[in-house]
Amino acid sequence: MEENITKSVSRTELSPLSFLQRSAFILPEKTAVIHGDRRYTYRQFEERVHRLARSLQQAGLVKNGKVAFLCPNTPAMLEAHFGVPLAGGVLVTVNTRLNKEEIRYILVHSDSCFLFVDSEFYSLVSDLGIQGLTVVRVDDSGLEGDPYEQFLAQSSPGLLPYNVDHEDSPISINYTSGTTGQPKGVIFTHRGTYLNALGEVIETGLSLRTVYLWTLPLFHCNGWCFSWAVSAVGGTHVCLRNINPELIWQIIRREGVTHFNGAPTLHTMLVNHSKAYRFEQPVAVTVAGAPPSPTLLEKLRSLNFSPIHVYGLTETYGPYTICTWHPEWNQLPLEEQARQRARQGQAYVTAELVRVVDAYMKDVPRDGKTIGEVVMRGNNVMQGYYKHPEATGEVFHGGWFHSGDLAVWHPDGYIELRDRLKDIIISGGENISTIEVEQTVVRHPAVLECAVVAIPDEKWGERPKAFVTLKKDAYASEEDILAFCKKHLAHFKCPATIEICELPKTATGKIQKYILREKEWAKRNKRIN
Amino acid sequence: MEENITKSVSRTELSPLSFLQRSAFILPEKTAVIHGDRRYTYRQFEERVHRLARSLQQAGLVKNGKVAFLCPNTPAMLEAHFGVPLAGGVLVTVNTRLNKEEIRYILVHSDSCFLFVDSEFYSLVSDLGIQGLTVVRVDDSGLEGDPYEQFLAQSSPGLLPYNVDHEDSPISINYTSGTTGQPKGVIFTHRGTYLNALGEVIETGLSLRTVYLWTLPLFHCNGWCFSWAVSAVGGTHVCLRNINPELIWQIIRREGVTHFNGAPTLHTMLVNHSKAYRFEQPVAVTVAGAPPSPTLLEKLRSLNFSPIHVYGLTETYGPYTICTWHPEWNQLPLEEQARQRARQGQAYVTAELVRVVDAYMKDVPRDGKTIGEVVMRGNNVMQGYYKHPEATGEVFHGGWFHSGDLAVWHPDGYIELRDRLKDIIISGGENISTIEVEQTVVRHPAVLECAVVAIPDEKWGERPKAFVTLKKDAYASEEDILAFCKKHLAHFKCPATIEICELPKTATGKIQKYILREKEWAKRNKRIN
Repeated sequence: MEENITKSVSRTELSPLSFLQRSAFILPEKTAVIHGDRRYTYRQFEERVHRLARSLQQAGLVKNGKVAFLCPNTPAMLEAHFGVPLAGGVLVTVNTRLNKEEIRYILVHSDSCFLFVDSEFYSLVSDLGIQGLTVVRVDDSGLEGDPYEQFLAQSSPGLLPYNVDHEDSPISINYTSGTTGQPKGVIFTHRGTYLNALGEVIETGLSLRTVYLWTLPLFHCNGWCFSWAVSAVGGTHVCLRNINPELIWQIIRREGVTHFNGAPTLHTMLVNHSKAYRFEQPVAVTVAGAPPSPTLLEKLRSLNFSPIHVYGLTETYGPYTICTWHPEWNQLPLEEQARQRARQGQAYVTAELVRVVDAYMKDVPRDGKTIGEVVMRGNNVMQGYYKHPEATGEVFHGGWFHSGDLAVWHPDGYIELRDRLKDIIISGGENISTIEVEQTVVRHPAVLECAVVAIPDEKWGERPKAFVTLKKDAYASEEDILAFCKKHLAHFKCPATIEICELPKTATGKIQKYILREKEWAKRNKRIN
Repeated sequence: MEENITKSVSRTELSPLSFLQRSAFILPEKTAVIHGDRRYTYRQFEERVHRLARSLQQAGLVKNGKVAFLCPNTPAMLEAHFGVPLAGGVLVTVNTRLNKEEIRYILVHSDSCFLFVDSEFYSLVSDLGIQGLTVVRVDDSGLEGDPYEQFLAQSSPGLLPYNVDHEDSPISINYTSGTTGQPKGVIFTHRGTYLNALGEVIETGLSLRTVYLWTLPLFHCNGWCFSWAVSAVGGTHVCLRNINPELIWQIIRREGVTHFNGAPTLHTMLVNHSKAYRFEQPVAVTVAGAPPSPTLLEKLRSLNFSPIHVYGLTETYGPYTICTWHPEWNQLPLEEQARQRARQGQAYVTAELVRVVDAYMKDVPRDGKTIGEVVMRGNNVMQGYYKHPEATGEVFHGGWFHSGDLAVWHPDGYIELRDRLKDIIISGGENISTIEVEQTVVRHPAVLECAVVAIPDEKWGERPKAFVTLKKDAYASEEDILAFCKKHLAHFKCPATIEICELPKTATGKIQKYILREKEWAKRNKRIN
């Protein structure tokens, strides 16, 4: 008894819920959330979060029950990041780019008992017919008639306790496309998200003055934990339903945005827009998914963007490494600066140093040439895949998380990605499984076999290309096959192009994907983009 | 077994040792430590830390063995903060202002088996004769003949592993003067110091560009965890043996100092110095121990210092609250700004909100008038007092740490200190026990009884004043008693003034200290300074 009291005096379970508690307490009148003309102060934000939590409890949510959200970056989506765990639940955010079947799989696999769905995506879920799933539509109006607002309104007011029983308990599950067709549910904990959020605050320089624009989808690793990080420092969230460069430029100017994040695709789109202008104060832009090109870097600089290059995976709560900028590099020629900046760097202050290892888990030489796999461990690695212990054991073998990304290790300890072990294509920041695309293509009645590889793409970084052999005496055009894909796959996963040909094979008949990739990536020194 | 592996992949024990590992890895050539003309890069700093750790192990240091340091803010003292825990030991830093008997008490009570002592203080410990204590002199020269350098040199090179077995294990013990004469050993953990250091990084805005000047003694709560915080962001430590305003102004200019901390005494001394000048870039100065006066605030501003007001105790790892500045307060008249700034504010982002409670542990009304005790809990509260479970139980009663500080709670949730429950005087940032001073005074053969209270002091904030009644037929002058104190007490603890008089008493004969204090603090609205 005595010992327990002593322990509780000296210990708080780490949880990002404490961030909202504190900001709402010390900065109640500060603007927490902006969405068009709607504005919520931290006091209002907190009240809405507690209403969501209470209503969920009143509607039957049990401890560790799963609550799914299929929404763009709206106030409801931000409220979910605090309200669901406050109610003792686990948040399941669903990628809005998925198709009906994929959404159904995630809802069923995650055991979700609630689904909050933005009206834009309501048609996708109107006839799911999943037993025991309560569906609440979010009209994103903030007005009385909105079913989401009605859900909040039904709760009694008053605050729920913020404390959690154990920091290692789950806070969210983020589904990610792996190499096999079925997405896997990556479990984040209260402790992991707390530490990761502090890491984001420190590495990207968030503060009370931060006005953060939600260009990055909140369904991507809970917005890389910025959902919690921005709230930790009492910053302001600026919501954004979709990527519209003209609107983004307007909002940056109107709201005085200081930070936003995204894949290079986003930044390229923005800097080349006719409304682009140079800021007086630098705006920090965090780029992940693929390294920024020298051209993009120069453009960003000329507009007074401060680029920050980070790298990570859903399994690492979003960013894990950062290319920490050495002040003396500012003296280098721009091309050389871009080369430095294009490296993925090393671990965040809250993470353990990453290693690049060979097949025997030995460090590769730090020569900038030898390729090995990037492995991570520690507080910034997921707890595991939900209901998938074998898959967890596989990626955790040898006591480290295996990223599936291939990199060289430079003499200064920074890593630089070169290729991917896994059959994954990263297109505009989204994962696409080549295997899933192949399995779809071969379902076409005229197709005999198929191999899908990534090809470099100016706008999206990478896109899939399908090499197809037709059945004897069968016929289908490239357009036919593409139309078939569009019917059965989320659109962003469809091949950019289809080539009907003979597939290169080994003597034993195995398709030699690397030959196809070499052909497409000739003259490049990396096999990722 | 499987479960253990999974856990270890997803969990790192929190420890500030990871900060040195990372900064030395990614910024090996960056300057970590400056001391006059000496400079150590992070690579060199790391090497020296590992040599210290290895040599300690070779010299017999066992797991959780205590290693004491009695040094000013020198490179050796910074190295101790990483080297001792890296060797598996626990660091005991000793206040250099204590006298021989106090030092002996701490060394014996802490079970220290090593003592590293700066040559300036060597005479204090040359004849301690404590069994089993290995004493190493630190000449602070960095040169071969220096016994400390010889101690480092005897180790074989190479790095020790950075990982720790458990984040709740102790990293340091900091002795603090309580109300009773004997100092108590406050235990800090790896987890607590890690989180506190991140809190300091975020709240005081430390970064790669930080050049931190060590005006704050490292023996105060491990320099409020800045020993670890500055290293976490790859900043530069600038050492300082003693407070010399002229030298400080020189160093600020020469090294481009961006941050330093201290009690208002220090800042007042600096801003009033003839070498004071206005900086081009703002310098962040963190003020604790007592609120900055409007005059000091105005002076700081005019020199382009950005003041940050924090409050805490040794038992809370140093600062626990910060007066987070609302941007709109910049519009207020300076007097009103000073009034806002003088408040102790609320918890750090890494700490739980503080409460102000009555005797029944109920929150006092947030009316800015009702006085209650400030209580804290969580990761930023010490593990307990070393070998003193009763004292720990006492300050932890009701599940919260009792600060002994009396405050009002303002309507906006910020607290403001008003008085002290404990018989403690805080003078120039140092704790003085009134009871200890009284016990010394009454040992004078002519003294019958004595009461010591704090009096306000322009320079030191507070100083002790002794009210003394002499024995019948005995005689001693005020000077006699003062000389006696100087012989038996550390000088900073000696009364500023002595008044020979009759002591006010209750009917039952209890001395009414509050009457003495009221007399000395008349016309002030607080009883602390």
